Amino acid sequence: MDDTKRRHRGDSLPPVAGNGLLDRRVLLGRGILLAGAAATGVGSSLTGAAAEPLKDDPWSVGAGSNSVGYEPRSKYEQQRVNRILSNPNGEPRTSHARTPHHLLNGTITPNGLHFTIVHSGIPDIDPDKHRLVIHGLVRQPKVFTLESLSRYPMVSQTTYVECGGNSGPMFSNEPLQATVQQIHGLCSCAEWTGVRLSTLLEECGVDPKAKWAIAEGADSLALSRSVPLTKVWDDALVALYQNGERIMPGNGYPMRLVLPAWQGNMNVKFLRRIQLSEGPAMSYYETRTYSQLLPNGKAYRFHFLNEVKSFITAPSHGMALKGQGFYEISGIAYSATGRIAKVMVSADGGKSWAQAALQGPVIPKSFTRFRAPWNWNGGPAILQSRAWDEAGNVQPLRADFVAARGQTPKPPNVGGFPNQHYNSITSWGVDPSGQVKHVYA
Amino acid sequence: MDDTKRRHRGDSLPPVAGNGLLDRRVLLGRGILLAGAAATGVGSSLTGAAAEPLKDDPWSVGAGSNSVGYEPRSKYEQQRVNRILSNPNGEPRTSHARTPHHLLNGTITPNGLHFTIVHSGIPDIDPDKHRLVIHGLVRQPKVFTLESLSRYPMVSQTTYVECGGNSGPMFSNEPLQATVQQIHGLCSCAEWTGVRLSTLLEECGVDPKAKWAIAEGADSLALSRSVPLTKVWDDALVALYQNGERIMPGNGYPMRLVLPAWQGNMNVKFLRRIQLSEGPAMSYYETRTYSQLLPNGKAYRFHFLNEVKSFITAPSHGMALKGQGFYEISGIAYSATGRIAKVMVSADGGKSWAQAALQGPVIPKSFTRFRAPWNWNGGPAILQSRAWDEAGNVQPLRADFVAARGQTPKPPNVGGFPNQHYNSITSWGVDPSGQVKHVYA
Repeated sequence: MDDTKRRHRGDSLPPVAGNGLLDRRVLLGRGILLAGAAATGVGSSLTGAAAEPLKDDPWSVGAGSNSVGYEPRSKYEQQRVNRILSNPNGEPRTSHARTPHHLLNGTITPNGLHFTIVHSGIPDIDPDKHRLVIHGLVRQPKVFTLESLSRYPMVSQTTYVECGGNSGPMFSNEPLQATVQQIHGLCSCAEWTGVRLSTLLEECGVDPKAKWAIAEGADSLALSRSVPLTKVWDDALVALYQNGERIMPGNGYPMRLVLPAWQGNMNVKFLRRIQLSEGPAMSYYETRTYSQLLPNGKAYRFHFLNEVKSFITAPSHGMALKGQGFYEISGIAYSATGRIAKVMVSADGGKSWAQAALQGPVIPKSFTRFRAPWNWNGGPAILQSRAWDEAGNVQPLRADFVAARGQTPKPPNVGGFPNQHYNSITSWGVDPSGQVKHVYA
Repeated sequence: MDDTKRRHRGDSLPPVAGNGLLDRRVLLGRGILLAGAAATGVGSSLTGAAAEPLKDDPWSVGAGSNSVGYEPRSKYEQQRVNRILSNPNGEPRTSHARTPHHLLNGTITPNGLHFTIVHSGIPDIDPDKHRLVIHGLVRQPKVFTLESLSRYPMVSQTTYVECGGNSGPMFSNEPLQATVQQIHGLCSCAEWTGVRLSTLLEECGVDPKAKWAIAEGADSLALSRSVPLTKVWDDALVALYQNGERIMPGNGYPMRLVLPAWQGNMNVKFLRRIQLSEGPAMSYYETRTYSQLLPNGKAYRFHFLNEVKSFITAPSHGMALKGQGFYEISGIAYSATGRIAKVMVSADGGKSWAQAALQGPVIPKSFTRFRAPWNWNGGPAILQSRAWDEAGNVQPLRADFVAARGQTPKPPNVGGFPNQHYNSITSWGVDPSGQVKHVYA
């Protein structure tokens, strides 16, 4: 038997971990060999029919629609793919809009689907009248317009923003039956472009006593957060563009602070003021909402980093596998401490692991898409992922995480968890009918 | 004088090329030193006013608007930033929608602003009923649904699509007074995700006699192009996602061929059929519209590659500089033959050149953003860029390009040029009033 035939029969594709996980190198090379896929109707065979003239579908028999200035999505996508809203009627409280990770692929979150949280609605800012003021412990306070900022050197950084409350449902002591969008949808990734905050501070001249930058937004609650200057010198951006175009209203139009991979709420939107100071402001959101409560009743004073984390986006809760055979397990990994170095995937609830392929380029502090080839044998399976970063940090196992951070009784609905920064493992259980559900394992 | 003071005075920032081009290393490091910027009001100094309580703008005094499922742009952006349409009333002819490069930054083109060309409108395709057939010189013809494709391994590639007719106005023998959008707007860059076409061909089994794949769309003219199998084995994608979400209607929803950095028209949209054959189809678009006419009356038989190219997006035609001092010169470079290796920028019409900074990561066959620091002295200037790729190819000078490819008399309006694949230099002239205009130099 020649090698081609052998590979098509799957003989050269022994699993590298339990329950059918295949070697990631299956995904490399010229063609990809799908053990069992051909046998399960993934691509339906034709018996000569394709050699006949194709019958036109209705949309192929007449001229299509016109192009417009800013292209909208297909009407079919408009019905299927949207953010989930926690406050659809805009009542006077916080509004969450969650990214549908299970319906996306790649690493960029398109601007219409980037998650947003606003605590007092989205202000309708006239960009020509908006101002950014830098003052406090500087030699010369300055005010910047959008136009004056456009003359400064810019940088681009593809990075993620993640709310400290993302994955809050994972603190429940029972696995909530919720999708990856409901659980992990407060995290998104975009190419942000703007002016380094350090550039603007150097223009003003920084007093050596200054250790913190207190950033304030132009929303009606004047949301304010304190940022250590070490982070500012490292990579803080006054972002003006999101995936090429001006940033979206819910993401802080016309300018926001981007602190790559730091707690989402600190990336102050509608940025209107930076005050340099010797100490932090201890403002409302840094002392109350986004403080990490611990099992011993104490709290972290600050929790800046979104630590190394991953989750599988497909297959995931609410999906149904259509028969045994080949599937790609695909998900997202990211870390505040550099590049993702490795993602391991399990199909047997963590008993054995196979290394996933990472889609390049692997960018520091950005979403990294991982993919693992899987031959489902039709039996029960529990899918998990676990990420490592280049700094040597590893995503904690759930038992260890819960012991350190605690958990809470299951609440009546998703949301409302007091705990923050869940970065442990997510498990999706597959039953023999192919249904996928959220489980703890 | 200490080093900090010296740098703020600009003494350590001697130009590295004529007319005020600065060393790109000015853009590196902690803070960026802007010779002359502080003196020209780029950031306006405050005299204590910022220490007073800020006066709230009108949008800061009450709750803002509600979040929705798919976020729209700010109303201000909706008015200012749109594609230019060549056929706004959808008459029965080709429609172009051009990307506004001068209003964007970074490397990703947001989906609403990605350029499109459709020759018979945008078909309204039901994704659940759409089929892709692979037949011809294969062992087993097969038909794929969107759902069956979703089981195959996927890859992502950030890459550009460029129409062969992009930059057509540059073939005019007089410099047309047109923006970078009008001249170079038929080129955009996105993260495309989908199934390698090679994966699907291996499923079908390829007859060794097959040398070409003839791809056909489901638009009403069944647009068809021939692709050498060497390109298919290299990196051809059946793309399902564009910047994370399902691809846009004008870009081929629900699936298109993506041939990274090859002539845009070959990236067949609304993909419904791949036929493997021994020779090319010599279809309408490959023999007529997208053939390159040469000065000697002959034509290239095919013109696959979009060769190494760059253009400055800001400052560019139609902009006005507000006084002398610091500006960032920013633009886009790309090549079908690998990564961009170097971009040189001139402010004196090509007499002298300074190396631009390249924004990383530099991705092969993708847009690369270049940036060069410039201290405008208020005199006349001519801004140019010139790119090199890692394969050693260099963007040709205009005189050499015109000698090889020809030019045409100025037509009554922009568009309608018979020539293709302009990849020579673009020049923007700055006059002492700060007005920027398209010139030849």
